[in-house]
Amino acid sequence: MIVVMKSGAKKSEIQNVLKQIKRLKLKPHLSAGIERTIIGIIGDERLFKKEQFSMLPGVENVIPVLKPYKLASRDFKKSDTIIDVAGVKIGGNNIVVIAGPCSVETKEQLMKTARIVKKAGANLLRGGAYKPRTSPYAFQGLGKEGLKFLAAARRETGLGIVTEVMESQDVELVAEYADMLQVGARNMQNTKLLRSLGKIRKPILLKRNFAATLNEFLMSAEYILSGGNEQVVLCERGIRTFVEYTRNTFDLNIIPVIKQLSHLPILADPSHATGRQDIVIPMSRAAIACGADGLIVEVHTNPAQAFSDGDQSLTPEQFSTLMRESKVIADAIGRSLE
Amino acid sequence: MIVVMKSGAKKSEIQNVLKQIKRLKLKPHLSAGIERTIIGIIGDERLFKKEQFSMLPGVENVIPVLKPYKLASRDFKKSDTIIDVAGVKIGGNNIVVIAGPCSVETKEQLMKTARIVKKAGANLLRGGAYKPRTSPYAFQGLGKEGLKFLAAARRETGLGIVTEVMESQDVELVAEYADMLQVGARNMQNTKLLRSLGKIRKPILLKRNFAATLNEFLMSAEYILSGGNEQVVLCERGIRTFVEYTRNTFDLNIIPVIKQLSHLPILADPSHATGRQDIVIPMSRAAIACGADGLIVEVHTNPAQAFSDGDQSLTPEQFSTLMRESKVIADAIGRSLE
Amino acid sequence: MIVVMKSGAKKSEIQNVLKQIKRLKLKPHLSAGIERTIIGIIGDERLFKKEQFSMLPGVENVIPVLKPYKLASRDFKKSDTIIDVAGVKIGGNNIVVIAGPCSVETKEQLMKTARIVKKAGANLLRGGAYKPRTSPYAFQGLGKEGLKFLAAARRETGLGIVTEVMESQDVELVAEYADMLQVGARNMQNTKLLRSLGKIRKPILLKRNFAATLNEFLMSAEYILSGGNEQVVLCERGIRTFVEYTRNTFDLNIIPVIKQLSHLPILADPSHATGRQDIVIPMSRAAIACGADGLIVEVHTNPAQAFSDGDQSLTPEQFSTLMRESKVIADAIGRSLE
Amino acid sequence: MIVVMKSGAKKSEIQNVLKQIKRLKLKPHLSAGIERTIIGIIGDERLFKKEQFSMLPGVENVIPVLKPYKLASRDFKKSDTIIDVAGVKIGGNNIVVIAGPCSVETKEQLMKTARIVKKAGANLLRGGAYKPRTSPYAFQGLGKEGLKFLAAARRETGLGIVTEVMESQDVELVAEYADMLQVGARNMQNTKLLRSLGKIRKPILLKRNFAATLNEFLMSAEYILSGGNEQVVLCERGIRTFVEYTRNTFDLNIIPVIKQLSHLPILADPSHATGRQDIVIPMSRAAIACGADGLIVEVHTNPAQAFSDGDQSLTPEQFSTLMRESKVIADAIGRSLE
Repeated sequence: MIVVMKSGAKKSEIQNVLKQIKRLKLKPHLSAGIERTIIGIIGDERLFKKEQFSMLPGVENVIPVLKPYKLASRDFKKSDTIIDVAGVKIGGNNIVVIAGPCSVETKEQLMKTARIVKKAGANLLRGGAYKPRTSPYAFQGLGKEGLKFLAAARRETGLGIVTEVMESQDVELVAEYADMLQVGARNMQNTKLLRSLGKIRKPILLKRNFAATLNEFLMSAEYILSGGNEQVVLCERGIRTFVEYTRNTFDLNIIPVIKQLSHLPILADPSHATGRQDIVIPMSRAAIACGADGLIVEVHTNPAQAFSDGDQSLTPEQFSTLMRESKVIADAIGRSLE
Repeated sequence: MIVVMKSGAKKSEIQNVLKQIKRLKLKPHLSAGIERTIIGIIGDERLFKKEQFSMLPGVENVIPVLKPYKLASRDFKKSDTIIDVAGVKIGGNNIVVIAGPCSVETKEQLMKTARIVKKAGANLLRGGAYKPRTSPYAFQGLGKEGLKFLAAARRETGLGIVTEVMESQDVELVAEYADMLQVGARNMQNTKLLRSLGKIRKPILLKRNFAATLNEFLMSAEYILSGGNEQVVLCERGIRTFVEYTRNTFDLNIIPVIKQLSHLPILADPSHATGRQDIVIPMSRAAIACGADGLIVEVHTNPAQAFSDGDQSLTPEQFSTLMRESKVIADAIGRSLE
Repeated sequence: MIVVMKSGAKKSEIQNVLKQIKRLKLKPHLSAGIERTIIGIIGDERLFKKEQFSMLPGVENVIPVLKPYKLASRDFKKSDTIIDVAGVKIGGNNIVVIAGPCSVETKEQLMKTARIVKKAGANLLRGGAYKPRTSPYAFQGLGKEGLKFLAAARRETGLGIVTEVMESQDVELVAEYADMLQVGARNMQNTKLLRSLGKIRKPILLKRNFAATLNEFLMSAEYILSGGNEQVVLCERGIRTFVEYTRNTFDLNIIPVIKQLSHLPILADPSHATGRQDIVIPMSRAAIACGADGLIVEVHTNPAQAFSDGDQSLTPEQFSTLMRESKVIADAIGRSLE
Repeated sequence: MIVVMKSGAKKSEIQNVLKQIKRLKLKPHLSAGIERTIIGIIGDERLFKKEQFSMLPGVENVIPVLKPYKLASRDFKKSDTIIDVAGVKIGGNNIVVIAGPCSVETKEQLMKTARIVKKAGANLLRGGAYKPRTSPYAFQGLGKEGLKFLAAARRETGLGIVTEVMESQDVELVAEYADMLQVGARNMQNTKLLRSLGKIRKPILLKRNFAATLNEFLMSAEYILSGGNEQVVLCERGIRTFVEYTRNTFDLNIIPVIKQLSHLPILADPSHATGRQDIVIPMSRAAIACGADGLIVEVHTNPAQAFSDGDQSLTPEQFSTLMRESKVIADAIGRSLE
């Protein structure tokens, strides 16, 4: 960490910072510049707080140098992490596609959709049994019954299932049914949930909150990793900006940046990120082109009748197109989508 | 809701929209403009979904007309709601100040701070026993022990206590100790927590998420209200923008807007909203000047040693200044801060 | 335009809106809903102002229905516009790459870079002679001398040149030298400049301002088009968001959306949009994959010594990689990059 | 500036950075930490470029330490700058109110409005003769004729006039008529205009662009100051965020921050910042309460018929209320609004 003193800071104020550094058993590195004195603090900056310096008199600014995450970083683990979800590898050279309805609505709807996405080439089945909805008057999901329908769809199609868990007390139940547990964007900083997920041994799909910085996103992964669960897959699903023509702003830029900073795989969710069925296909191509390890997309047999998120769901025909075009891009960049 | 057809939409497409309207037992209102046909849908738009029209062929856009919230709206209840928290009235002509440390750290620290804020004129005591932290390596709160310390501080000072609850399963326990339960910004859309809070009969302090629109904010209040708990106090605590000189952007503009649209009281949290101790006082004056029903601020006896949020905590002396200056503004606009 | 009356609006207030509609020679369309009366206004909403209704008593909201732009819209012209810049076609099935240094620094640097990008396959040469810089202490461009160097580079390599114009009074001079005049992001709403560009008959590259909505972006194109210059190429170059790991947030989502709403070609500028050399290549692949008509990228023979924007400039080797990989993606989606 | 080396940077890479420092005649300050080596660069960081280090091999990050602006900073000038506009002092203990119509529409309208705002207590008259409009089909201002009307209004009322200049070539003409020249938000980084304004000796009102960071805002002031014109007044007028209930987000937080970092006065423009007549008054109270040196507000005798910005213009009665309430707040904080 670097302490920048105010121009005109007094000697005693500088001394005071040095004392604080010694008190915390750290090493100072003083550098008297033309306009300002700068003091480097040598030691693990995860072990003390910025405020222990920023609130001292004469201090203008304190600048962290190290990244706050450790286990999620490439510095910690150089090679790409590859995660096995019901036999499907996420990460490495593979591109995977997770598809299915936003919500599990009825057994018939789910079965029909599962067969369709399986046939079109999807690798895993998604579907929400527990739904976080903006409105208390909207459909909130089938709960445990929905989990059972998902299990039935797995039995029939062989597709592993990915479904959301919303609270720490549901983790055990959802983990019984799901092959991969999803943390929704709204829960990315639900620290109790993250801690619970750190204790299980199932893959986690961690979605980026729509206001999360990169550090916050990786720190949420760090919660799970530091609990002992190493199977974390990240997912970009749009950020909140001033833009009005997409529900959120699909921030594909984070994908190549994450690839540099972290060893964890990262998927892209063009359905939630854009909220627009009519651009899901081109944005899926873009996501694969810039390095995403796969996609998670919403498919509905009749989007206009979907219980939730119809605006962004692909029809079965559109999903077939998406699979075909995604494969073309994957091939073009030397990756494999099977 | 208003359905805007594409320019050049076919007659059959328009007929199809009209059929859908009838199917849903709603009334259409057709209007053939110069460039486009527009179809008004008469009926309660909370009872059907936008997608039931937006996904139909020939439809360009569907525009909601009604507000999605009902119980939280001024249309539903004209007069200001006034909420009693341990004898302190929030709303109406009163201005209240809730103050205390970010986290409950030790019994001594809490007691000392409670006495200081009481003496300076605070109306209620805040303090976090459960802390949602970005880093898994940071202090996570004392939990139940912290609640007991808060109860002890209440016994001694007489100040009612406000503290955060993070999960539905903790609601019962926290409600035993707290006079008002706080929903943190990260949990504003934790729908299970909101539902649980709808079932109790204690006042709730609902903080705005840093990416929440006004509709989303009021819909979270609606979750609690529709569960039967009418005691909801809103709180603005900053939104995420491109701005770099404050931790968040304190969006005071929402205060007079909420006052028009909702009957619920709204407080302002300049500590979290700005993240800067050095501007908490002027921004507190501004919050009261534009109509906030009060403040919630962080005070620490030694900010540089706080377990969390030291950067934004006021010293006891600064807090006295804040109380004095807030009172001056309250008086100037004819409101009462006692 | 649609006028939504307040719930409980008086009859006389509704009458008053109807009178205003008649006064403006428009046709009303009244629709009395359950909670609110809604009045459609039939007529060209570009010819009156929202405020002529929104400020009337009893009016809650006025919702525009039509798009504010006309000449830039697909409704006005169905087929893709293809623009010829020094023999290079922008739009249609082609993918073009414009490359060169951020600033024209010296004749030697420019010549060397021009030869390199030509050899690697670039279609047009970019280079700034007039530079809008954040700091008054930074290099501001060579001005007319820079234009002459650009002309010399064209003579030698045959590459048409694209360069920025910053003020209406410079349009004539810059148009003498350039094959395509660029409007920088900061000048997207410099209406005097846009009007001047409407009067010339040279292609314009109009960059999106980093805070521009889609409507604002297309309205800036409309300024040029309505002046009589039909040769407008749009360019996405990043928007300002809370994100900190890229200089701006490259908003690729606008590309497929613009393709639906407008007939104008749109390029992508990954250099300015991301500000990071190390992700320019993957984001270029993504831009082409989602439908951009080409790229404009910065190349410098020695980025660490660039007079401006070194952080985002590609080395010659990196540029060759970009050309190769862009061609692979263009081929994969059936477009041609030659 | 501080150069942070990658963890695992080679010795030769560190040597290379040190060489570059020497080459630029700067002094290095090496600090070998546990995970990373950090190299401080001692010398004026305004005189070299970040890229001269960030692009070197083995460098992870380069962190600027100094502020990029100099003349605009409190470090450069400790005492508040007070600027005289036609006898009215802006800055210091005074609060000033600039009022008038958005656009100068007709002589009669301007005269009437000028008399009204004068009577209500405004200190200066605003009115746009040159208007930057989003739409080419909207009213663009009366130009020189508008300037003459403004001069006539000054003759009659004695109020000094504030009006916008949009291009460097208009500076001379506008300066002939205006007492203070306004740079609109869209032109905040029109560097040619800023340079021209640096050469005159009239007060400048510099509005913040809606996507400007604090550094960019002060760097635009620096352009004018470094040209020799010391009479710069800043103005906050809203930033672009995801928020939908105000046209922009009025960012009052910048006011107390600017007061710390700069000696220049800063006004607030609640009309443009919020775009809503119905919250201009409470937000004006807030602006004064947090330390603004005054307000600039739009007043129209008949907002529903305004040629521009009717939605945000106050009626004469509302303006009287604003003056009265602003005075109350000014008095409460010990400042003087006369």
